[in-house]
This record gives sequence, C-alpha cells and structure tokens, in this order.
Amino acid sequence: MLLKIDKQNARPLYVQIIEGIKSLADQGALTPGSALPSSRRLSGKLGVDRSTVCRAYEELQAQGYLDSRPGSYTRIRKRGREAAYDPSRKSAINWEAASSSEARRISETFAQFLPEKAVSAQTGPQPVDLASLDPDTRLFPVKELMRGIRQVMAGPGAQGPGPASLNYAPYQGYPPLREYISQRMRLHGVSVSAEEILITNGAQQAIDLVSRLLASGGAAVALESPTYSIAIPLFRFCGLRLRAVPMAARGMNLEVLERILAREKVGFVYSVPNFQNPTGITTDHDHREKLLALCLAHKVPLVEDGFEEDMKYFGKVALPVKSMDERNVVIYIGTFSKALFPGLRIGWMAADRECIRRLTAIKRFADLSTGHFVQCVMNDFCRAGAYDLHLRRLHKVYRKRMAVCLKTMDKTLPKTVSWTKPVGGYTLWVKMPVRMTEQDMSRLMARHGLSVSYGGYYFPNSRGSQFFRLSIAKVDEDEIREGVARLGKALDGIG
Amino acid sequence: MLLKIDKQNARPLYVQIIEGIKSLADQGALTPGSALPSSRRLSGKLGVDRSTVCRAYEELQAQGYLDSRPGSYTRIRKRGREAAYDPSRKSAINWEAASSSEARRISETFAQFLPEKAVSAQTGPQPVDLASLDPDTRLFPVKELMRGIRQVMAGPGAQGPGPASLNYAPYQGYPPLREYISQRMRLHGVSVSAEEILITNGAQQAIDLVSRLLASGGAAVALESPTYSIAIPLFRFCGLRLRAVPMAARGMNLEVLERILAREKVGFVYSVPNFQNPTGITTDHDHREKLLALCLAHKVPLVEDGFEEDMKYFGKVALPVKSMDERNVVIYIGTFSKALFPGLRIGWMAADRECIRRLTAIKRFADLSTGHFVQCVMNDFCRAGAYDLHLRRLHKVYRKRMAVCLKTMDKTLPKTVSWTKPVGGYTLWVKMPVRMTEQDMSRLMARHGLSVSYGGYYFPNSRGSQFFRLSIAKVDEDEIREGVARLGKALDGIG
Repeated sequence: MLLKIDKQNARPLYVQIIEGIKSLADQGALTPGSALPSSRRLSGKLGVDRSTVCRAYEELQAQGYLDSRPGSYTRIRKRGREAAYDPSRKSAINWEAASSSEARRISETFAQFLPEKAVSAQTGPQPVDLASLDPDTRLFPVKELMRGIRQVMAGPGAQGPGPASLNYAPYQGYPPLREYISQRMRLHGVSVSAEEILITNGAQQAIDLVSRLLASGGAAVALESPTYSIAIPLFRFCGLRLRAVPMAARGMNLEVLERILAREKVGFVYSVPNFQNPTGITTDHDHREKLLALCLAHKVPLVEDGFEEDMKYFGKVALPVKSMDERNVVIYIGTFSKALFPGLRIGWMAADRECIRRLTAIKRFADLSTGHFVQCVMNDFCRAGAYDLHLRRLHKVYRKRMAVCLKTMDKTLPKTVSWTKPVGGYTLWVKMPVRMTEQDMSRLMARHGLSVSYGGYYFPNSRGSQFFRLSIAKVDEDEIREGVARLGKALDGIG
Repeated sequence: MLLKIDKQNARPLYVQIIEGIKSLADQGALTPGSALPSSRRLSGKLGVDRSTVCRAYEELQAQGYLDSRPGSYTRIRKRGREAAYDPSRKSAINWEAASSSEARRISETFAQFLPEKAVSAQTGPQPVDLASLDPDTRLFPVKELMRGIRQVMAGPGAQGPGPASLNYAPYQGYPPLREYISQRMRLHGVSVSAEEILITNGAQQAIDLVSRLLASGGAAVALESPTYSIAIPLFRFCGLRLRAVPMAARGMNLEVLERILAREKVGFVYSVPNFQNPTGITTDHDHREKLLALCLAHKVPLVEDGFEEDMKYFGKVALPVKSMDERNVVIYIGTFSKALFPGLRIGWMAADRECIRRLTAIKRFADLSTGHFVQCVMNDFCRAGAYDLHLRRLHKVYRKRMAVCLKTMDKTLPKTVSWTKPVGGYTLWVKMPVRMTEQDMSRLMARHGLSVSYGGYYFPNSRGSQFFRLSIAKVDEDEIREGVARLGKALDGIG
C-alpha cells in the first residue's frame, strides 16, 4: 500500500493516515473488498505508534470506508453510489420571472459590482490596492484571540461558558458582550444599557434590520449623497424610496434635509458622521446637534452609522449624535469589523428599548441569533483589554499611514485634482477635473498598477462620476507611497 | 493597595492584575492622580514575575487607565466623563406607528412566543425538558473542534488559511467548505457542485433568503400544516400569503396541494420530508416523486428543508427529493445545527446555479457573508472525519433514546392519547382527546414538572390545539423515562 505520511507536517498523523487511505480508495488504488494491513504491521511500516493507526482505522470505519468483522481482516467497504455532477441540467424554473421585482433589481446590481475587481486585476504590474476597506490582516492580534478561545472553552465557570458557547445564543445577543458594549458606549458619552443593545452579523445586517423595521408602505429614506455604496441597493431592496441629501464639505446639507422632511413621509434618515464612507468627512458638534434637532422636530428616526467610531487617531472628534439623544430618536450602529476580525461578523445596534425589542423580533425570525461562540470569544478578548490595546496600536499605525498618504498626494498629484483631508478612518475622496465611466477608470488605474473604488457606486442616482475613493486600510506606508506615485502618473494630463 | 490575585485561577496573572486595578479605580479606592507602586515592588508583593506586572501596566496605560511620564511614578489617570444610564428617558418616536405592518405583526408574534418558557419554568419540580430542539451539548466533540481551530490558525499553508480566516469570506461561502458539502450531497445521491451551494447563517437564514427572493407581489407559499413554527411568521413577514396543506400520516396531502397549485400563483412549496418538525413524519420515495412531479408540472420551486437529514438512525429513509430533481426545481436547505454546534450558525442551500446567484446577491447586501472563521473551522473539522464520526455516535445514542421513549410511552400513556412513530430525528407529535389553550397546557405540564412544545404554534391558522410536540434532543434515557412517566400522570384522566 503506497501510503505516505509526513512527520514534519502539523497535521496529526492519524488524520494523515485517514486522508491517505481515503485518497487511495477514491483513486481506485484500493478497491472495495481489498484487505488493509493489520494495525501492527502498518504502524511498524510507517514508524508510528500502533494506537495512531487504530484511531485512524476506527474513524475510517465510522465514516463508512472500512468493513471490519470479528476474526477477519479489515477491508475497504463497497460504497454507495455517488451521484455524478451533471452541469448540463437546465432548470424548469425561469428564476428571473419567479423573482420579486426587488430581488430582480438587487441581482442586477450584484452582477454590476463584480466586474470591478476583475478588470483592475487583469493587466499591468501587481496592483497596489487602494480600493479595499478590509482591515489589514497583518495587524490582527491573533495570539490574543486564541487566548480568548481557550478561555471560553475552559468553562463552564468563571473563565467562560464552555461548550454552551457552541449552542444557540439568546436572540438579542450574549448578555456579557452586550454589557461590555453598553459600558464602552457610556464611556463615549452615550446613555445606554445592555437591554438597549442588539448584537448583529456586522453593521450590514443592522442596516438590513432597520430597513425591514421602518420600510412601511411607500416610506422614503433620506441619505447622504454620496454614501456607503452597499447600503443603497439594500434600501431599494427593502422597498424604500431614496431621497438624496448632498454632502457638503462639513456634512450633509441640512437645508435640503429639512425640505425633504417637511414634504414627505420619511421612514428614517441614514447618516455616517465620522470619516464618512466614501468621503472621509467628519461632522462637528454643531452639525450633529442640528441634525438631531431636525429629526426630533419631525419625529423621524435617525440611523447613525458609527462604523469607524473607534478609528479616531487625529485630534478631537465630536461625540456620537447618540450621546445627545435625550429623546431616543437615534438608532446607533456599531461594529468591530473595521478595526479587527470582520470574519467573526459582530456588529451591534443601540436604540430605545422598544425599538430594540422590535428589531430583535425580526432578527429572531430572520436567522435566530448571531453566532454564540464568536460572541463569547469577542467578549473575553475585549474584557482582557485586548481590543483597547489593539486600537492604540492601530491608531499609531494609521496616524502615520494617513499622514504619509496626505503628504505624498500633496507632492505628487496634479493641481487639477482635489481631495478631502480626513481626521481618522481609512478613506479619502478624490475629485478629478473630468467625468469618467467605470470601465474607463478601471482601465486607466489597472494600466498604472492600481485599484481604487469607482465613485459612481456611492451616489444613489448616478452613472458616470468625477470621483473615486482611496482607502489606506490594507496598505502600509511603502505601499501608500508607491500607490500614490502611480496615481500621480495615472492622473497626469487628465482633463 | 488592596490588590489580590489567585494563582490557581486559569485567568492569566497579568489579566487579573489589570482587572484588579481597574476595579479599584472604578470603585474609587484608587483616585485619579494616585501613584501606583513600582513594578519591582508590586511583583515582590504579589510574588509574580516582574514582567507580568510590566505587561499589566502597559496594557492599562494603553487602555487609558494610567499616566506614565519618564522619570515619574505611574499614576491613575483622570478619566473622561462616563454617561450615566437614564432608564426614564422616553422616546419621541412611536415605534409601533413607525413600523411597517409586517414588522408590527412579527413583533406581536415574538411577544407571544416568549411567555411559553416563563410559565413552564415557574412552578413544580425541576422540569424535564421535552420541549427544546437544541442538540445535547453533553455530546459535543469539543476536543475535535479545538483541534480544527488550531489547525486553521496554523496557516497560511496546507493546514489552513491562518489569519485570513478572520477577514471577510467570499459572499457565497468558503470554497473548500462548499466543495465538502457538495461532495457529501453527491454521496446522498444529489447531483450538485460547489458552485450551486450558498453558505448561510443556519437553515433559518436560508428560509429568509428564499422568501425574500420569491415573495413577488401577492405570491403565496404552500406549506404543510402543521409545520416548523418559526417559518410561519417569517413567511408572513416577507409578504407571502399562506396556503396550508394538511399533513396526513404519510406526508402532506398532495391532492390538496394540486388544487392550490392549479388555482393560484404560488411562489414556492415548503416541505420537510424527513422527521418533519413537529410531527416526526418521514415521507416515502413514492410521495417524494409525486410531490416533485406536481411542482415540476406547475413550474413552482420546491423548498426542501432537510434540517435533520443526517439524523437517520432507524432503517432506511428515502433519498432527498433533490436527488430526483433533474430539472432543478428544488431548493434544498441543509444545516449542521441539528447534529452539532448550532452556535457556529452554519447552514447551506443547494439549488440551480442561477437561483443560487440570485440568493447570493440578496445575502451579500443583507449581511455580506457568513462568518469566515467558523466556516474554515467547520471545514477542517469535517474533513478530518470528525463530523461523520460524531454522527455515528449520535445515531447510537438517539436510536436508544427514541426506542426508550416509544416503549415508555406505550407502557405509560393513557389509551385516549395517540402519537407518531418517527424513524429518526428528535420529535414526536402527540394528540390528546381534547383541545387546550396554550396557557392551560403550560400550567398542566408545569404542575407535573415537564415542558413540552404547544401544538398551536405549528399551524398556520389556529389558536387552541389538541396537539403538542415532544423532543428527545436534550434529554438522556433516564430523563426520558422520568419525563414520560410524568407525562402519563399529567394526561391521566384528560378528556
């Protein structure tokens, strides 16, 4: 039997034996009915402990690969018929016709979003990624996370819940994590208790839940223009009409907002006050007060997306609008995903208890709850101080990255181009002297070894655009210098 | 300083020091400006390594608890104002009026579901839980899971993806896990590739996604009556009209289904062919063929909920309807949650590629993707054979539990009561000679130290009910014997 194992490999030896025998069986090198060597013989041949071979044989038997009867050799078992995959099958259903009109539209949007990445990666030098808003995995505190995992599983007891963390979570979220988040928000000036927190699968699900709650027949959503690109198709999908409020240099134009609120039924206002995506603009205390007063006067809920609240690394940023919210008008959305571990999918909402109860009802029927295990792990991670420590480190890193980016842009980009100067977060918003289609911009950038995020996606109503978004989330200082230098060349002579 | 640490505690010493100092500061025992002992002195006093104290001080400084300037003592820092929580705040928003009509209704349903548990737990002896369908955490293969976690984090490389598993996942799901699931489904006779799999947050999100895709204006859903209780309010929330098809002893009444399909626009048919929740009924091959033929003839998608597909422990159960689906009419829903780790929240859908593409579009905007980390871990866990091995063990355990349950019921329950005889899964459906309100049933059961699941919840259109569901998911053989004995007493003399 041509079974090979590698003792240097971190994969346990018994798993290597299992996989080796399976692979020989699947390739037909071991046919049904053929006898395997005794565990004594195989262990001698491979130079491993006999118990290792026995364990592998037991598991192979459990998986239906082996037959073993008392007093006879262990043999490869005849397996049931495995269905062949037939890619030529045509569906009898016309899925386009079967879809709701909202589902049809979001599917088209999804298809439009995809080519972006394909184009930018296809030609030119290894591109510098100034498009992605994914955090930099190189900075992840993995050891501290593993410590949290061990701690959670060491329970039940003072350490953590143990195996119960692998069972369903309470619908509203793991209570100690909700408690931690509410305490943290109180330190940011927000008066909130654990009862007013709902844990979600990242900030994105929070936007979905609030849309599903408040999209009553024909309601509109008033939103900044440009705004977070992934929210726009979702609002439409939920049946909300879009009312665009232009972004000015210091935040959304409140006069336009006031006219909209006075004129029609608005389900909620959606705003990103810090390091807005995509513009990077942060509003001041005065703007926040006025925005809240407007919403309160019209009794319209304000959805405050604080997705990068924790990325304040330059100077002083005003407290969240939610901190001024004495009449519980604000539904605050937070997330861990922009500082660490988006792959755990943990975000939250903080709002009036009655509102949270209604959001929890929708969440319960939509997916029962956010994963219990990841909530327990995040809770332990945060309470051991690892989140705060990580933020301090991130601030140091991104303060430098953003400074390098702004300085290099000043030196390198042509005078016909202008951009925002963020006080934190990851994104800058660049204005060119000409409009471009998405395809033209992608090609131009790809030719110069760059990817950026096309501005057209961020407007509720637009095709071509003079804008694009830069993100420094995933690139270090050298990559930023190189990327901006390439950008200078790409934009040279435009317009 | 009254700092205490416990060297027997599994919590790392530096974390204990951090928490101790924070707690002293929060209680006011350490006031802002007060000096801490030098790390040398504190380490001597506590009998720990000096580096442990230094690490604690560094993290406390990072978290903003300490001030430390060169050449001076480390001092407790003056902290920013922490907002007090004010529970008396009243919202200016009328959340009931602001909610959509669907959201209002689901919120009412949510509130109705809650008292069930409260009532059954409040009186009588420690209740035997014959209500819960949560898997038994005592049987979880935790060691194998931890091995999977270490393996994933040992990457990047052959072992696993490493820290990339903590970043966003592809929208459709982690490709190796999709590949594993499709291979597994082919072994169950289903012709499907990884391209036709979408990973979801458990089966519940799969039901939500398919409803959002197919609930086009005024469409109906044809569903078994009784059926999975949590699906009913969700269908309504998604705007689907409900068309109940009565369950007969061998599955849903296909003549009634045919009349409905002939009469009106049906978005999809929802069916649970194995160990149906709540009845425990499993349909035979013939019923499955006819059901599929009906859906195909009317070109209506069939949603097959295979939530307990893997819990076949008695005799032979027919292959999934999806295995006969040559014209890609079936949208299959699967989950790991009924055999292990529901707290990881991993389910999937298998359907025509075009249908999966559309579902993926909705999923992308609804919550970006299912957690990357848990998908990577589940993939490693399954590929090491741990899932199959666990299933073998579960089958042994539940084969005995179900046999004990059926035998004890035969011996103990009055002749006026009847019930189903499941060939797998966890649930039985019991019919009493009288109708009861939920409150009366809960009180009766609580008085006898039992909780069961009230039958009324499982019907699309019903208040009172002659039925209740028993589940053996969470109880061992002794608990089953005790529970059924109590049930016999509770039902004695009823009707």
